[in-house]
Amino acid sequence: MDLTKIISGINSKKLIISVFGLGRIGLPTALMFTRAGYNVIGVDIDKDLLNDLKKKKTFIDEPGLLDLLNKAIQKNLIEFSSDFEYAVKKANILIICVPTPISENKVPDYSAIKDISDKIGNSLTQGQIIICESSVSPTTIRDLIIPIIEKKSELKLNKDFGVCSCPERADPGKIVDNFDKVTRIVGGSSYKIGKVIIELYESITNANIIQLSTPGTANAVKLTENIFRDVNIALINELAVLYEKLGIDVKEVIKGASTKYNFQPHYPGPGVGGPCLPANPYYIIQDADKMDYIPFLIRVAREVNDRMPAYTLDLITDALNYVGKSVKGTRITVLGLSYKADIKDIQISPSLKVAHLLKEKNASIQVWDPYYKGKIIKDIKILDSFQEALKETECIVLLTDHKEFRDINFQHIMKIKNEDSPLVLVDSRNIYDPDNLPKGIVYCGIGRKILET
Amino acid sequence: MDLTKIISGINSKKLIISVFGLGRIGLPTALMFTRAGYNVIGVDIDKDLLNDLKKKKTFIDEPGLLDLLNKAIQKNLIEFSSDFEYAVKKANILIICVPTPISENKVPDYSAIKDISDKIGNSLTQGQIIICESSVSPTTIRDLIIPIIEKKSELKLNKDFGVCSCPERADPGKIVDNFDKVTRIVGGSSYKIGKVIIELYESITNANIIQLSTPGTANAVKLTENIFRDVNIALINELAVLYEKLGIDVKEVIKGASTKYNFQPHYPGPGVGGPCLPANPYYIIQDADKMDYIPFLIRVAREVNDRMPAYTLDLITDALNYVGKSVKGTRITVLGLSYKADIKDIQISPSLKVAHLLKEKNASIQVWDPYYKGKIIKDIKILDSFQEALKETECIVLLTDHKEFRDINFQHIMKIKNEDSPLVLVDSRNIYDPDNLPKGIVYCGIGRKILET
Repeated sequence: MDLTKIISGINSKKLIISVFGLGRIGLPTALMFTRAGYNVIGVDIDKDLLNDLKKKKTFIDEPGLLDLLNKAIQKNLIEFSSDFEYAVKKANILIICVPTPISENKVPDYSAIKDISDKIGNSLTQGQIIICESSVSPTTIRDLIIPIIEKKSELKLNKDFGVCSCPERADPGKIVDNFDKVTRIVGGSSYKIGKVIIELYESITNANIIQLSTPGTANAVKLTENIFRDVNIALINELAVLYEKLGIDVKEVIKGASTKYNFQPHYPGPGVGGPCLPANPYYIIQDADKMDYIPFLIRVAREVNDRMPAYTLDLITDALNYVGKSVKGTRITVLGLSYKADIKDIQISPSLKVAHLLKEKNASIQVWDPYYKGKIIKDIKILDSFQEALKETECIVLLTDHKEFRDINFQHIMKIKNEDSPLVLVDSRNIYDPDNLPKGIVYCGIGRKILET
Repeated sequence: MDLTKIISGINSKKLIISVFGLGRIGLPTALMFTRAGYNVIGVDIDKDLLNDLKKKKTFIDEPGLLDLLNKAIQKNLIEFSSDFEYAVKKANILIICVPTPISENKVPDYSAIKDISDKIGNSLTQGQIIICESSVSPTTIRDLIIPIIEKKSELKLNKDFGVCSCPERADPGKIVDNFDKVTRIVGGSSYKIGKVIIELYESITNANIIQLSTPGTANAVKLTENIFRDVNIALINELAVLYEKLGIDVKEVIKGASTKYNFQPHYPGPGVGGPCLPANPYYIIQDADKMDYIPFLIRVAREVNDRMPAYTLDLITDALNYVGKSVKGTRITVLGLSYKADIKDIQISPSLKVAHLLKEKNASIQVWDPYYKGKIIKDIKILDSFQEALKETECIVLLTDHKEFRDINFQHIMKIKNEDSPLVLVDSRNIYDPDNLPKGIVYCGIGRKILET
């Protein structure tokens, strides 16, 4: 395959890049190419989303992103389109950023991958390179994407077109900032194609880039990283629940263990959320299943983490029971719905799950999350202010450790509340130090036994 | 409890320290106290061991240890004794370093702990502090050691005597060197007792020392660290086996994932050995069992690692099958019996397990380990030289990655061997780069598919 046109296009920034899927990965990726001076076609099936983007609006709350969007539009470097045929035909580089969620049955849903592979295959021409940034299993590019494209296009891999895996390693909330910091991983369908794509990424980012021998290897790297995190969070969740039973404070244990040179701390919580960690293990589990191999450890880790919202409900029930109350009918202030701190994202959020569990048990929940002020998220009404969520509260349940919640003035809360009964505080992220809390609180955390301040 | 005598004893180095159990932890610990100028009574039930020590001989192969032993004897700072009553009565500080292995049924065997607690209880006098360096579960000091001592001595904890947990965090092969480097963890039966023991350790080591709220918390820290390692090695073993099936090189994946800021690499191998990693999880599992709680993840991780020797046998069988040979009757050079690199220690060694499995399958094994030259270890004869182990070899199986094995001259081996058939090389620690091997080798590793060089 002749790569000279693409190489000279990198040097002159004259390549056209089509990015398919303008979500949390696709939009930042598209804009990073415009930042470097490339012409980008941003493609999505969602016309409302495209219209919003044309008006410089995006639902994605990433620091620095709006600025990049404004500049790209101002410099006329980006066009937004729902015309896939046009976008495939016109571009030199086609970047797949479509979502790869898991289904309700916890099986990877590659329907968007199949669909975009069809569309690319239908209009592919010689000399193009397809990059997959979507998270997929190690076999997906080899066994799904490439066969579809070859069949539809009647073109031959590495002779007529190239494929590269360059899985995103983004950390939501820091996507733009991390773009120049976190090492990129690239695996090409041939060594030369991988090399050219490294040159392409080198032209848009200061981050290190390493080449892996195959696209599947790059995907294995990405999944291994996230499975590592999922398993380690499961381990500390499992230990936290045990240590609480043994009267040992897991927060103290983590602090102590962190003084050992070969220990890496992870933290317990109400579960594991987001688009990656609770999903990525299932890509590997499905590939393993095809090989008649059962990755028991990875599966058990998933199950341990999936049980944490229910455990958090148990903890709340226990803490309320300590003061002679039931969940039913108790006014509970729920703090945080995002799946992790300081971002606006409720994908597979354990916090949302716990809120739903409380509702099912007929608690009278009063929810506050600064990222969702006044909104209704999956039947959960978020109030207009923290103050409103505190009204006549009997119990505060912290579910997401947003910055705002770290400096809550509990002295003030104790003053304004009914003084007759203690306030129950369930700190599912272990962010509070009970020694610094005012008197009259019944405190518990994950892996920390109930105590009275 | 009056601690002034002990505090002034630390300042003047006039304390007498009795160390119970002179194994891989006890002897170095005893000698560290002599290094600082304390008088130490080293106590063991094994009279042969005591006689050896008196003659400045030890089976423990730790760099720097013999030098410390020589100096301690020369300065007359250490006496060796099997008289427990004498050693308990005479000392101010009693340090428990007895072994806490697991039984064949994978249940912690605390018989040595019970026995020493009995003996201490029988002769304890007011004002003494007992330190436990042995690895025990978070409940063992509270529910086993203290009750026995209180009952036997009729003395009261914290009023008459103190107890401290100071679990060793030693890395075999670097015990002496790490003594001044790895942070110590201390949990006392009271805050003041913990504080005094920190002063004591500060007088013998430059390492940082942190205080934990209870003895059990210190034990939980120690176990959490080792369980973290066991689980993470299990995870990479599980992934390695899968990646091999998917045609992905696990070594490349680990290298790639290590470029992500929040990933910590662990490495696959023929299993997990040593006195700590394969045992410590069972201490936690037993404590959990008492609380009717099942730590599934920790248990599965143990099982994954325990299956690795059998998987290694499968790998050898497969690699031999590739060249049309059976394990039975094939001359196999086995390299390494220690449980890890560069140490003389075969406790729960997976390498030894694989050697036994090969023997069971009637391979004609020729074993070489520089640390066990000419010895017979559990029915396995170790030859006198590497050259002898190579005689007419058809297959080399590397099981322990001793330094010596990293620079094997395979060019030379290929020259001296029968040239008609390829050499099979099973690299269970993935230390060789097949690209750098001479032609004619059938190579495979853990998580790396069979290939011909």
